[in-house]
Amino acid sequence: MIETITYADGAVRLLDQTRLPTEVVVHDCRTAAELAEAIRTMRVRGAPALGIAAAYALALGAREYPGEDPAAFRAHLERVAAEVRATRPTAVNLFWAVARALAVADAALPQGVAAAREALLQLAHRLREEDVAINRQMGAHGAALVPDGARVLTHCNAGALATGGYGTALGVIRGAVEAGKRLHVYVDETRPFLQGARLTAWELHADGIPLTLITDNMAGYFMAQGKVDLVIVGADRIAANGDVANKIGTYSLAVLAQAHGIPFYVAAPLSTVDLGLPDGAAIPIEERAPTEVTHLAGQRIAPEGIAVANPAFDVTPARYVTAIITERGILRPPYEAALRTALATADDSGVERPASEEPPASGARAR
Amino acid sequence: MIETITYADGAVRLLDQTRLPTEVVVHDCRTAAELAEAIRTMRVRGAPALGIAAAYALALGAREYPGEDPAAFRAHLERVAAEVRATRPTAVNLFWAVARALAVADAALPQGVAAAREALLQLAHRLREEDVAINRQMGAHGAALVPDGARVLTHCNAGALATGGYGTALGVIRGAVEAGKRLHVYVDETRPFLQGARLTAWELHADGIPLTLITDNMAGYFMAQGKVDLVIVGADRIAANGDVANKIGTYSLAVLAQAHGIPFYVAAPLSTVDLGLPDGAAIPIEERAPTEVTHLAGQRIAPEGIAVANPAFDVTPARYVTAIITERGILRPPYEAALRTALATADDSGVERPASEEPPASGARAR
Repeated sequence: MIETITYADGAVRLLDQTRLPTEVVVHDCRTAAELAEAIRTMRVRGAPALGIAAAYALALGAREYPGEDPAAFRAHLERVAAEVRATRPTAVNLFWAVARALAVADAALPQGVAAAREALLQLAHRLREEDVAINRQMGAHGAALVPDGARVLTHCNAGALATGGYGTALGVIRGAVEAGKRLHVYVDETRPFLQGARLTAWELHADGIPLTLITDNMAGYFMAQGKVDLVIVGADRIAANGDVANKIGTYSLAVLAQAHGIPFYVAAPLSTVDLGLPDGAAIPIEERAPTEVTHLAGQRIAPEGIAVANPAFDVTPARYVTAIITERGILRPPYEAALRTALATADDSGVERPASEEPPASGARAR
Repeated sequence: MIETITYADGAVRLLDQTRLPTEVVVHDCRTAAELAEAIRTMRVRGAPALGIAAAYALALGAREYPGEDPAAFRAHLERVAAEVRATRPTAVNLFWAVARALAVADAALPQGVAAAREALLQLAHRLREEDVAINRQMGAHGAALVPDGARVLTHCNAGALATGGYGTALGVIRGAVEAGKRLHVYVDETRPFLQGARLTAWELHADGIPLTLITDNMAGYFMAQGKVDLVIVGADRIAANGDVANKIGTYSLAVLAQAHGIPFYVAAPLSTVDLGLPDGAAIPIEERAPTEVTHLAGQRIAPEGIAVANPAFDVTPARYVTAIITERGILRPPYEAALRTALATADDSGVERPASEEPPASGARAR
């Protein structure tokens, strides 16, 4: 069992994803600021994991306020929330978790600051446990889409490391394997941060699931050779119409899949859905540091003084998405109706989603 | 002026492309074996440059035979030719140059071994000079396809470093700039060997041509944003029907360009055309070492013990190619007739192409 985020002795413990696969190092965060920095530097990453980490950040932040004054506590919590929201703009789960945490704190505050602190910590624990359960549900649903013997291509890391455990896209792969299917996974290395080469390859190899590591630009080659039966990726945010923001390169894969008649599936919990955005055009796309492109393992791999682009995500229009695999089942186009129905079902079924929740990050936060 | 391959004091001097951009180092080869090893390890690469290097390898090999016996000399030369042909299977220019060298040696041998040695060295010099002239012709023709203000995307390095000088795809860009056009070039980094990040970015930056370095998986993102007006790449081999083998990732770019209505141009000298192959299916695709994918700058970036694919090239079907830019002008579909006409014109026009030339590497050499 890969322990992406745990909590012990007052510290949030992250399996440091900047050190994998060559080193397995646990990075402890004892303050909200330390955890926010760990999110920014991608020691923890992946949309669902960011939601869990954000909830823990608010729990740590709540502990840092020493007094018992509810209004001052709430103002402090709002500053922590702002710091967490400022870390990474694209994955909506982070904003969703912050909103949930603030709602939970507000509900507990009448019982005092200590009660609110405890409620925040319990929320973070619960989000983590819920996430694993949700991923297992996705895995069970999605396995039906994966034929025995399938060659599956995936991009980035939508695995245990991107979540509380088990994974979204890799959860579907794990679900299919647990259902007795023999799979082979083509793993895109996923430049520039190499989440595929470093994290997905490591996870699958540890689980004994056969894989072939490829560079991102080889995907079309293997599709043309008839060696890819389906593509499964995760998502950082899904707009109301089904447009999907995910790791840079996802859009190119989707276009290639369609050109080759290959199904393109997105596996994501419903917390990834942002009904506040009508389509993907308003999803904020994070631009990360040029050094992620120009340097690798501390070594310069490009000349000095040149311009570099580093958008961390792209948006795949819904028309390229064959189906969206969620914890409430497999959604098919038209997505707007399917997503709204699934979210209503989720609200009825005990998966928490406060009706009063503020809309997550809108286009106004875009950069 | 970038000096990719020069000859001085009995040595073939290569601008070592494994050391760029951080170090500018000249690598001297004094024997055919040394030069073959430099080809294999990609100290020199790029289809036209491989042709020139192959000719120099035969010239060095000729010098290594100490005697004056024509038959023994010819047998020795055949062994050198076999060693050179075994270095890299995809770029046809290498096989074409070896065939030209053997023909030149045969023509000179009646005058003695010394005459053949000298003829081989002169051929290598001439191929290098011809190549620069051919590239300038391509640049002048191709510039007409590049509008003022165009945003051009290129892949790998089809520049001065891939040729005797000036470049094929980058020659077209240089030709457009010399014609007074303002361009901006998106440079794919081109995993795994990073020819774009290391070589193309270095060349363009040295020439003061504005560029933005991107990872390969960002190309679709920038196309979707309307930021790419055309794509220009080089070629390692062009089949009779116009199918183009080029650096891995080219095919994906071509599919993406077509999906976005963006012209996709191939710039290549006619020595890249292999009329012996009816289509791209029989073009041998070189599989290179997994360590190019799993290691970078000597550092491991993927877990140990996993399977890795590393095809160095892919084949873009002719239907994705808007035009082929050659030294004899711009060719449009249907390519078979256009290529045959251009080659006939080339043969008539003083660009050497011996009629007796053996067919270059056939599918039988594929692996």
